[in-house]
Parts: sequence; structure tokens; C-alpha cells
Amino acid sequence: MSPGEFELIERYFTGRGAVRDDVRLSVGDDAAIVTPRAGADLVLALDTIVADVHFPADTGSRFVGHRALAVNLSDLAAMGAEPAWALLGLTLPAADESWLAGFASGFDELARRFGVALVGGDTTRGPLAATVTVGGWVPVGEALTRSGARHGDDLWVSGTTGDAGAGLAILQARLAAGGAIREQLLRRFLLPEPRVGLGRSLRGIADACIDISDGLAGDLAKLCRASGVGARLDCARLPRSPQLLESAGEVASMRFALTAGDDYELLFTAPPASRHRIEELAAATPVSLVGEITAKPGIHLQGAGLERDLVHGFDHFTD
Amino acid sequence: MSPGEFELIERYFTGRGAVRDDVRLSVGDDAAIVTPRAGADLVLALDTIVADVHFPADTGSRFVGHRALAVNLSDLAAMGAEPAWALLGLTLPAADESWLAGFASGFDELARRFGVALVGGDTTRGPLAATVTVGGWVPVGEALTRSGARHGDDLWVSGTTGDAGAGLAILQARLAAGGAIREQLLRRFLLPEPRVGLGRSLRGIADACIDISDGLAGDLAKLCRASGVGARLDCARLPRSPQLLESAGEVASMRFALTAGDDYELLFTAPPASRHRIEELAAATPVSLVGEITAKPGIHLQGAGLERDLVHGFDHFTD
Repeated sequence: MSPGEFELIERYFTGRGAVRDDVRLSVGDDAAIVTPRAGADLVLALDTIVADVHFPADTGSRFVGHRALAVNLSDLAAMGAEPAWALLGLTLPAADESWLAGFASGFDELARRFGVALVGGDTTRGPLAATVTVGGWVPVGEALTRSGARHGDDLWVSGTTGDAGAGLAILQARLAAGGAIREQLLRRFLLPEPRVGLGRSLRGIADACIDISDGLAGDLAKLCRASGVGARLDCARLPRSPQLLESAGEVASMRFALTAGDDYELLFTAPPASRHRIEELAAATPVSLVGEITAKPGIHLQGAGLERDLVHGFDHFTD
Repeated sequence: MSPGEFELIERYFTGRGAVRDDVRLSVGDDAAIVTPRAGADLVLALDTIVADVHFPADTGSRFVGHRALAVNLSDLAAMGAEPAWALLGLTLPAADESWLAGFASGFDELARRFGVALVGGDTTRGPLAATVTVGGWVPVGEALTRSGARHGDDLWVSGTTGDAGAGLAILQARLAAGGAIREQLLRRFLLPEPRVGLGRSLRGIADACIDISDGLAGDLAKLCRASGVGARLDCARLPRSPQLLESAGEVASMRFALTAGDDYELLFTAPPASRHRIEELAAATPVSLVGEITAKPGIHLQGAGLERDLVHGFDHFTD
């Protein structure tokens, strides 16, 4: 970027997101300064989205701005953390003002909604990609992790799965849908909703938690490996939306629900004794009981006409 | 990346950098968890480097790994902060093991030297680029900023400037040099040394500080704008290395010293009463007195046969 462009872009990203009194120095210096929270651990995530890898390059820039932040907020949700601030590394081929305005508005709207201040970052010329770091706070020792699942735990998932994958398939003309169904599925891909409130509610309840970014089956396999356990997944209980079933049918909707990424729902485990408390949480965010954690490693699928082991997560499953 | 590649890459970036007892959860979960330091502010920087924008795409991967971290450590140095941990977003066209091994070793060597733990990140397929976030600590209220320069302050710069620009010019065959001169200038471009120790020493001494990433003249203009002041820069005092003078000659070496980026030296201001204390710091890191801060906005160049105003920083200067 030329210096003039730098300044233009800096203006686009100054004062974005929430106003927070723990931000001592924001966008415009060599680094940002924030005040830590007493009694809290600092939780940090970094995710990159790349054009034509994580989203079609011609996706509206408002959706790209939303996505760049949402995928990171989802990581903090999976830890049970409260997001506080973000830094943005944006690489783009040219300083296109209308593209930048859309990106900034999508980022800003989501950031304000979750109380996140944009405190710094870097804009560079290059192939379209965005890397965001989000930081937040969790009471000392209360963070959720992937590694705490125990034999006998219930396995839960929030919301519905597969919708975002179907939305991407519609965008890429691999799946046909029209009207309200099309709009709902596109929305699930374009405007993923991080489950920040649910994640915080699960502190002290869930034994393990992960967000579904790479597909339910693959992310379940990661959680199980990290915890040294296995899982039995009851496919008949997988929460599939009416829109997904209507557009994709029984077989393809199951494949989307199990293996498509980008849902950003939370997959978590908890002792059966916590069922009542978890069902109470469902008043704010729908959750479904979809299986159980087993001592034997590996993922066993059953229900809905399936009875098989997943050998290495979704890589082999999708063969 | 396919899941197999993910796992390969995760192994490359597990356990990199320093071992720190304030890291509660490192690479491998949805986010990292670190323990804040009592009595300290949290300082955060994010910088992206893109192939063929910030470094030639065929640069050895060890140098790319070094650079990705060094440019961020330099931002923390400019704030007077002590770096603690980093997250890495690496985008690369393919999971080339020898490239990854080189990148990881360059990153690791620098991280260990500065006590920085690599605690998380993301690896994605795409055009070669690396975004790093570095966090660190500074005693509450003691961070250096760009905005504290005052009329009458001395203007100082560390090390020598222009060498990295000459090194890049040699790499790109825009400048000829051989033997030890070539090696030294290439080294200044390929292995920039963040001035972390100097930055920390300047707490309580410097009024303002910035690192020179975009060229001394342009970065001085940013510091002056942020502080609402101007500067008189004595070009005869600019610290140019014998290698730069020998390879580029008087006129071109001055242009490199004033406008070439990538030096990652610190440019700072301090009251004249602090001269003795600053000269003592020079025992560890060379520093040069190169001008003074003026009440009148704008940068005035003098000495070495120059007598002119910089109108808008280096964009117009380099015309």
C-alpha cells in the first residue's frame, strides 16, 4: 500500500467494534494496550480465512468481514471465554473503498454485538485473506477444553448441523434450492453465529467442548483424540433443519450434517447428571443429545440406517 | 489442507519457542490460555508479511520464519514491552516439509532468544503469507507510544539505517556488492534484529518511540503527526554503515538511509537532559542523536548538502 492508502484504510478500522474501558491504546500506534482483568485467564485465538479456500472470492465483503471475526469468536465460545478485543490482519489486492466499507461494517456489527473492540492490526497488499486474533477472559481455571471428555459423558451439539455446508453448495451451484429455504441456508453459511453465550453457560457443566468448523464427525474425532476416549454417535438424533432436509434429501443431508464444515455450532460432553441443567440452557440456544463418550477409542456411527466405525475422522469417511 | 496435512503441520508448530510457566494451554485446542502478569498492561501487535510484497517469494524459509516474528517483536520493542507469547497464521500453497522445517526453525530460534512461546495459530492453504500476533507485558502506564514527543526533544535512532533496503536491492539485483559487504547487507534484510532490550531500557526515558519499518523519514513523519509536532533531521548525522556507503555511494546511501524500509531500528525522542542516560544505553545498542523535535509541524531535512522540507512523508520524497 502507498502511504495514502494506509491512512485511508486506517480510518476505516479506527473506532470499530465496541467501546471498552479496558482499552488503553487502540488502532494507530505500533501495538495496542489493554488492561487485564483481575482473577481471569487470558484466552487467545487466531484464525485465517482465505479467498476461494474458506469463502468464494466474490462473496460480499460484509459477509467476509463478519466471517473473519465470527470464526475467531467461535473459538473463544468453545473455551467458555468472554471475548474482549480483536486485531485484524487484512490482505487485499487493492484499496477498493466500497469493498472496505462493506468489510468494516460486517466486522463492526458483529464486534459491537459481542462487546469486542478492534484495537489494532495491519493492512497489506496481496491475495485476499483476513487473519484475526481475538482475546478474551475466563475465570481462572474455568476454561473449557477439548481434552476433558470422560467415558460415560453425554455428547451434545448446539443448533442444527449441515446447513452452512448446504449454503456453500447452493452458492457453488452444487445444490439447488429456492425461496426461503435458499435464503436460510445461504444465511447459515454467510453469517455464522458464534455460540458465545452457550459457551459461557457451559463453564462448570461441560467436561469438553469444541466448535464445529471442519464438520461434526471430524471435530468429534479431534475432541476424542485429545481426551483419549471414543464416541458413539446416534445419527438419528443429529439435528438437521427442515430446510436442509427439504433441499438435500435424507442421504445428502446426513452427509452435510456429519461432514460439512462452517457450522460453528458447539459440540460438547457432560455427565448424564447434568442433563437437566443443559436442557435449561436450551431455552436460549437449542441443544441436542446425540450420543455418548466411550472408553474405546474411535467414532462409532449408528442410527438412521448407519452402523459403522469412522477410521480416521472425516478424511476417510468422505472417500 | 487435508486432515493429514493439518496434523503434520501441527506437529511442526507444537512446542516451538520458549517454555514459559505462564502458558496454561498451548497449541492444539480451539484457543490458547495464558496467565496475565500482575501489575502489567497487556501489549498486542499483529503484522502480516506477504510473499513478493514484504520478501521475495523464493527467500529461504528460515528467513521467512524469522521475519514473521521479528517484525512483530519490533512493534513490542517500540512500546517498551517484554514479549511473552505469539500466535501464528501461516498460509502456504502446499505442505512442503522441508520448507516448513526451515520456517519453524527460523521462528523457533528467534522466539527462544526472546523468551517467546508459540501458543497457537492456524495453518491454511493459499498464497504464501504469515500473520503473527505477539503479546507481552509492560508495567502499568509505562508503555512508550508514538504520541508523546515534545518540542525541544532530541531525536535519536538506534543502529544504522538503510542497510536492509540495500540488502533487498542486492537480492533484487538493483545494487551490486560482493564478499563480506554483500553478506552483511543481505543479513540486515534477511535477519532483522528487533531492538527489544533497547525499547525496555527506554521506559521512563523516551517521550516517544516508533520502529522503522517503512523508512526513517516516513516513520518520523508518523511519529510527528501522532505527537502534533515537527522535526529537524540532521542528515549528516544519520548512522550509515561502512558497508552501505561502500556499496551504494554517498547519494544512494542517503536515499536508502532515509526512505528504505525493513531496518527495524528504533526512532525515539527524549529531553536533552536525558542525553547522558541514553549514551549509557549505547553500550548495549548503538544510538545516534540525529535531530530535534520542533513545534512547527512537518519534517525539515538539513545537513549532508540537503536543505528541504518533506511535505507528506516519504511518498512525495521518493518521487
